[in-house]
Amino acid sequence: MVGLTERTLNVGLLGCGTIGGSVVRLLAEHGDDIALRAGCRVEISKVADRNQATWSDLPLDPSRLTTEAADVLNDPDVDIICELIGGVEPSRTFILEAFERGKPVVTANKELLANHGRELFDASDAKGLDLYFEAAVGGGIPLIRPMKESLVGERLTRVTGIVNGTTNYILTRMSEDDMSFADALAQAQDLGFAEKTNPTADVDGFDAAAKCAILASIAFNARVTAADVYREGISEVSADDIAFAKRLGYAVKLLAIAELDDGRIAVRVHPAMIPVHHPLAAVRDSYNAVFLEGGKIEQLMFYGRGAGGDPTSTAVVGDLVSVARNLISGSRGVGCTCFLDRSIRPMSEMRGQYFVRLDVTDKPGVLAQIAAVFGSKGVSIKSVVQEGKGEEAQLVFITHTANEGAVQESIQELRGSPVVAAVQSVLRVEAEE
Amino acid sequence: MVGLTERTLNVGLLGCGTIGGSVVRLLAEHGDDIALRAGCRVEISKVADRNQATWSDLPLDPSRLTTEAADVLNDPDVDIICELIGGVEPSRTFILEAFERGKPVVTANKELLANHGRELFDASDAKGLDLYFEAAVGGGIPLIRPMKESLVGERLTRVTGIVNGTTNYILTRMSEDDMSFADALAQAQDLGFAEKTNPTADVDGFDAAAKCAILASIAFNARVTAADVYREGISEVSADDIAFAKRLGYAVKLLAIAELDDGRIAVRVHPAMIPVHHPLAAVRDSYNAVFLEGGKIEQLMFYGRGAGGDPTSTAVVGDLVSVARNLISGSRGVGCTCFLDRSIRPMSEMRGQYFVRLDVTDKPGVLAQIAAVFGSKGVSIKSVVQEGKGEEAQLVFITHTANEGAVQESIQELRGSPVVAAVQSVLRVEAEE
Repeated sequence: MVGLTERTLNVGLLGCGTIGGSVVRLLAEHGDDIALRAGCRVEISKVADRNQATWSDLPLDPSRLTTEAADVLNDPDVDIICELIGGVEPSRTFILEAFERGKPVVTANKELLANHGRELFDASDAKGLDLYFEAAVGGGIPLIRPMKESLVGERLTRVTGIVNGTTNYILTRMSEDDMSFADALAQAQDLGFAEKTNPTADVDGFDAAAKCAILASIAFNARVTAADVYREGISEVSADDIAFAKRLGYAVKLLAIAELDDGRIAVRVHPAMIPVHHPLAAVRDSYNAVFLEGGKIEQLMFYGRGAGGDPTSTAVVGDLVSVARNLISGSRGVGCTCFLDRSIRPMSEMRGQYFVRLDVTDKPGVLAQIAAVFGSKGVSIKSVVQEGKGEEAQLVFITHTANEGAVQESIQELRGSPVVAAVQSVLRVEAEE
Repeated sequence: MVGLTERTLNVGLLGCGTIGGSVVRLLAEHGDDIALRAGCRVEISKVADRNQATWSDLPLDPSRLTTEAADVLNDPDVDIICELIGGVEPSRTFILEAFERGKPVVTANKELLANHGRELFDASDAKGLDLYFEAAVGGGIPLIRPMKESLVGERLTRVTGIVNGTTNYILTRMSEDDMSFADALAQAQDLGFAEKTNPTADVDGFDAAAKCAILASIAFNARVTAADVYREGISEVSADDIAFAKRLGYAVKLLAIAELDDGRIAVRVHPAMIPVHHPLAAVRDSYNAVFLEGGKIEQLMFYGRGAGGDPTSTAVVGDLVSVARNLISGSRGVGCTCFLDRSIRPMSEMRGQYFVRLDVTDKPGVLAQIAAVFGSKGVSIKSVVQEGKGEEAQLVFITHTANEGAVQESIQELRGSPVVAAVQSVLRVEAEE
């Protein structure tokens, strides 16, 4: 191992936006520390970005900058490709080309991995090349490495994550400052957390669903894609729901949940109520956290910044250094671990508790009629709160553990009931009974 | 890389108590999963424990069990030594012997690493052999690997940990069930968290101090020993302190704090008040958590089971698999990263906020006299609460950020003051001002 510190590995960077720029600056600032800690030096030897505006202020010689990804991919001096373009194409093609040229890859591309993971990992395995992706989930939070390496001896049973900072920020503002969804979204947009023109990827849960698929694939050793994930966003969560949840001892969070049910994988993203004492309930503002459960470890949680250039750049650099060390020693990190075929459990077969809030006409017998609807579907009621407001009343139910399909059928029937003015909300309650 | 899964590495286990037994069972139960995930198989080929009572119920052929560590160390078929005896000797000698015989080592021994780390890492570096120790801090929580590998690009500035489950359990019971320290300790002993005969290692902070030294060594790339760590236990924390803390918006926790101050390392273990909104405040019962801060990552927290055979065995197995993979590929993991010499900042130079609770005589002018003592030492008061109780009154101060030495001098002078009946408590307050 002597002399390792004199070895320098060259990284070719594809995409130099927020994260890419942070990676370049981090390596420029901390390169000496890293060489001492890791036993090798990692340098950005070439950067491709079509948008030349991203080139300004980079601590790199202009000769290293190009608009053409091919200049990076074809450069024989580039040892490792770092893909930070995002989106499916052209990232997918570039990564496959990197493997063809014998270069290992580090990426932060959740969308690509969640939709085309199998193709990419097959290509990396076929060539015996590393494909690292710590930054794809949880930004600066070490998650993938601990799950694949530290927990190699564990059989995880459940992963519950707050993996989207924008929606957690919005829900925190709604909870702590009594803001409406629209006002909290506007504030998140003003602060740059949410996209101005199209906040859909965050608010409707697409971002969280991609991350959920990746976490499930690692946790349960079987390929899960974004399309497998049941998905609901937070746009219909109201200030009233959050106020009721608080009074009942719950916080409302957008959760990404992956669990094993008798060998099948269940993956879902939706707003949910969790007990205020649960460690995830204390995850505020734009922070992320992933909560793992398993037979040996019981409970683990990883908490931190799930986005942002600087935090995410540490995850990318951690991967680059590991890949560099592997190259030098002629070894390879843990490859694809999806060696099982598991089926996906349909959402209708989910079992859990539910919070149902109804506007009803305030007449005798209404509660009995509604309770009878739940009862006829086999949904048992755990608690009811009734509140009058003028001619109407509000009824809030929490069910015992029930079947999702039965609850949805109950809701369907209640929508048609003459005593129900409106089904205000249906939220899942993630708690032990 | 083809064919890796057919390789089996043999582990020789020294010490088969709670953790050792769990490691043996985990590998017997999950060995096939691990082989598929990691690309190699890890087996326990020999176990040494002088206490033959530990042998019963092990899923191992009796021919693999011995009372003599030398039988394991000298066995040419043993590829990796796993030291789970604990304590300084004979563990230290055995590990050095393992290196002499060319065998890498996995250990969970915090006391040994915190007191003789340099000697052990020098020996491992001299031979180019792995020395892994994930289980030494935080039990089943992945910490060492994320800090050394995932965060290789970060310069950490501060580590704040709840690293002793027994004391966190006691403080949680005192806070949530209004128990006294003595009653909560007795309950912890009944539940097996605290040692019956001598709970000193936990209660007086020795266990936390060893872990603090290890975390500081990794975070700041310089060797820190247990003797460097300032240490106070929780036996003088009263139910009244916790009640006052709650009213003021704080939780009381035994914290292990390691921070960089102008290049010097400050390491301390003591009870402290932290704001209820801090993620560490939500760490209840016997759970552990380590909170990291740095310029890039901002904040990270790792939470989980800090003790117990099953959680800790996952950390040991994660290390064994990594060492096995390194052996097969002829590489080595990240070695000792303490390449800097840093001095230790004396505790008297610490600066922070303080909570001071005094019993005073309830006469006019008392507050002025006490405030004058603080003022004469340059300690500025942030808030005061006065409560009468009969002829005496209770005064609770929270200071602005002040120098530890000045606060201790103030306390010294107050102890001699005729208007102060008793200094009930002095607690540090870990909060941003």
